[in-house]
Amino acid sequence: MSHQVTDKELLVLIQPLIQAQDQDGVVALLQDHHPEDVADIFWDIELDEAKYIIKVVEKEYAVEVIRSLDPELQERFFKGYSPQEIADDVISYLDSDDSVDILNLLPTRKAEEVLSFLHDQEYAKNLTTMLHYDDDIAGGLMAKELVQVKHNWTVSQCIEEIRTQAEEVESVHTVYVVDDRTILKGVVSLKDIVLSKAHTSVIEITNTEFIAVNAYATGEEVARLMNKYDLITIPVIDSMNRLIGRITIDDVIDFIKEEADKDFQLQAGLSESVASDDKVLILSRARLPWLMVGLLGGLGSSILVSHFEGDISALPQITFFMPVVAAMGGNAGVQSSAIIVQGLANNTLASKNIIPKLAKEFAVSLINGLACSAILLMFNIFLGQQSNLSLVVSVALITVIIFASLLGTIIPLILEKFKIDPALATGPFVTTLNDVVGLSVYFYLGRLMLGA
Amino acid sequence: MSHQVTDKELLVLIQPLIQAQDQDGVVALLQDHHPEDVADIFWDIELDEAKYIIKVVEKEYAVEVIRSLDPELQERFFKGYSPQEIADDVISYLDSDDSVDILNLLPTRKAEEVLSFLHDQEYAKNLTTMLHYDDDIAGGLMAKELVQVKHNWTVSQCIEEIRTQAEEVESVHTVYVVDDRTILKGVVSLKDIVLSKAHTSVIEITNTEFIAVNAYATGEEVARLMNKYDLITIPVIDSMNRLIGRITIDDVIDFIKEEADKDFQLQAGLSESVASDDKVLILSRARLPWLMVGLLGGLGSSILVSHFEGDISALPQITFFMPVVAAMGGNAGVQSSAIIVQGLANNTLASKNIIPKLAKEFAVSLINGLACSAILLMFNIFLGQQSNLSLVVSVALITVIIFASLLGTIIPLILEKFKIDPALATGPFVTTLNDVVGLSVYFYLGRLMLGA
Repeated sequence: MSHQVTDKELLVLIQPLIQAQDQDGVVALLQDHHPEDVADIFWDIELDEAKYIIKVVEKEYAVEVIRSLDPELQERFFKGYSPQEIADDVISYLDSDDSVDILNLLPTRKAEEVLSFLHDQEYAKNLTTMLHYDDDIAGGLMAKELVQVKHNWTVSQCIEEIRTQAEEVESVHTVYVVDDRTILKGVVSLKDIVLSKAHTSVIEITNTEFIAVNAYATGEEVARLMNKYDLITIPVIDSMNRLIGRITIDDVIDFIKEEADKDFQLQAGLSESVASDDKVLILSRARLPWLMVGLLGGLGSSILVSHFEGDISALPQITFFMPVVAAMGGNAGVQSSAIIVQGLANNTLASKNIIPKLAKEFAVSLINGLACSAILLMFNIFLGQQSNLSLVVSVALITVIIFASLLGTIIPLILEKFKIDPALATGPFVTTLNDVVGLSVYFYLGRLMLGA
Repeated sequence: MSHQVTDKELLVLIQPLIQAQDQDGVVALLQDHHPEDVADIFWDIELDEAKYIIKVVEKEYAVEVIRSLDPELQERFFKGYSPQEIADDVISYLDSDDSVDILNLLPTRKAEEVLSFLHDQEYAKNLTTMLHYDDDIAGGLMAKELVQVKHNWTVSQCIEEIRTQAEEVESVHTVYVVDDRTILKGVVSLKDIVLSKAHTSVIEITNTEFIAVNAYATGEEVARLMNKYDLITIPVIDSMNRLIGRITIDDVIDFIKEEADKDFQLQAGLSESVASDDKVLILSRARLPWLMVGLLGGLGSSILVSHFEGDISALPQITFFMPVVAAMGGNAGVQSSAIIVQGLANNTLASKNIIPKLAKEFAVSLINGLACSAILLMFNIFLGQQSNLSLVVSVALITVIIFASLLGTIIPLILEKFKIDPALATGPFVTTLNDVVGLSVYFYLGRLMLGA
């Protein structure tokens, strides 16, 4: 079994070798390491050091390292390479899906130049076609490399075809059966090929009840299907049912992770995907829009509170409980919307019928509101707060928690209806709205009950 | 290609057939549907209807339906079955990993009874061993079904072994090579077996630079390794390096999704995994703890504000801007902590060195704070607010945004250091803390600058 080193260990070993320009030393050291481990240390070394490693190791190894890099690192890395170098040393060695990912990172002009330097015209043409698909749909996720056999072949002909394709198609799990017009007829597992006699007709062992996706299916749909049917690869077809590629599960896992990350970011009020080592201005730009939304909401609250200036002058203590009322509204609202958002994302909402959901949410928020209010009341009695104010605060708290919870339930369902990502609802949007709603409820109740 | 129906269509077609007790009709209808599609409609039908479907279809098909059910539905479903029925009709047909998942859902007593009814003693013993592992570590995620061959065998012996195991091991992608003490020596892809001559010694085509995990590795670690090295299966070994099982990627995808869901829930202040169709009391219990944290924070804010009663009486307008200061602190803090939390989760933090991060965060929050304060100042001038109060509010806003952003950066890093899930920091915890900090800054600055 290969030794699992941490990035740190490898880093400490390799840097002196690079500085000493010890080519043999670097190659010998990396013999015991997977390319993916080398990709990891690229975060911590200088561009010149990275280029040195790529230069001295074997081409196949170098390409695996580059393929495994985080897209951000890849982008940085390729700035130091000419289009011809990228074509000859990288793209020629990669599968089409990985090549397309890299070409998408380059400026359009440079990507076109890279394509023009490719010797394999067929491959260049394939890549050009694939570049037309967005990177979040099936066509953009697929690879062209696959083993396809004719429906009238025998098992031994299939094995011959696998042998022919072996170099180009690195991992084979499924063989795709097509007719003369390359229309996909079914799939055969490699296991069934191994276990069948050489002269068996492949159509006899073909599974015709397979799942395929259209090139324009969304990445989300691909992920959902592969997850639901426990698929490792899924064939991609065009509108005429012709086989045009296949997607492997590893590319979809990245997609699932990106999707989950996106929801997390929306919830946190980040409007672009950012990482802590992005530039200051990029980080600032990703965060400012939602801060502005929060600011506008806050200004709304300010105007609202200013309408109660008279009440505040008469009873300044009423302001003591503004933070707790506003905060609890925000908290309760985010909780209830998160449950709906997750149900929508995972397709586990039994139905989208809104009335029973609101009824249940009312019950839940009533219980939680009562519990919180009781504690708040005890606290106020203990601190000797005026009893009528204490009562107002507690009644306001129940009302706000119920109100915010219902809003948190309704908003994501409405957003979903208008085809807007419901995860938006769990972010600053609902919190801000609930701030304003919560304070209104609090002050109006105060005026009503205290007759101020 | 199989026809992709929506749940609704299948539901409308099958329910009348069930009500008419039309056994042949149900079987004929389901011939065109995958078991996974049937599992989907179980959300919308009665338990009796579900049991009818399971009763009339073929055993293998029925078991696939049950396997594909959401765990919640499985739990509900098995309440209507006796231990003997579960043993004979379900567990006997399933792979060990799926069986263990189901046994884990049953009350301990019932699970033991199920095991005692199994005819295959070896299988029962395996399941008992596997039940000892937590369901979030490698041992709990693995299946026992795999093809293992001896290192001194030929390729044709390996193919014979695959044939022998074919019924038990449904999908074979990799064959595991072990020595006489079942110590794992390497892995062989099925493709290499297909392409090798029958008399080739298997050790010649064995990849000895493989990745394996210990049975006690965390699910997160398994997911990280499989994702990093693009693995479809990973062997599980014990402390003596003996092969004891393998994990397939589909089980890890579920795990990755659950992990992502967990972070989302933490961020939203949900303390357990809940779905919108859970019972009211369960929903209430999952949400109350964080509401209490928020409540305590809010009470802290109240006490804080009460210390400034004199200032408030002297200048009631100061209270107008409490909501905006508190809210902006919360928003900015969650943004900065989300970036750190995501970097930690995805292993993309270049380093965990805190000083440069804080310096950068200071720059980002200074820019965003200045932008927000400028807008707030213009707004106050426009509304004719007192100029000295306007100035205090704007200075407080910058200060609070910077303060909250720095706290949001530090807290997840500290939590990580103490082995607490840093995602906690993006939830009500940081928001609440920043409410209190924000209001303190605001009122102290107000007292200082206005001399109130």
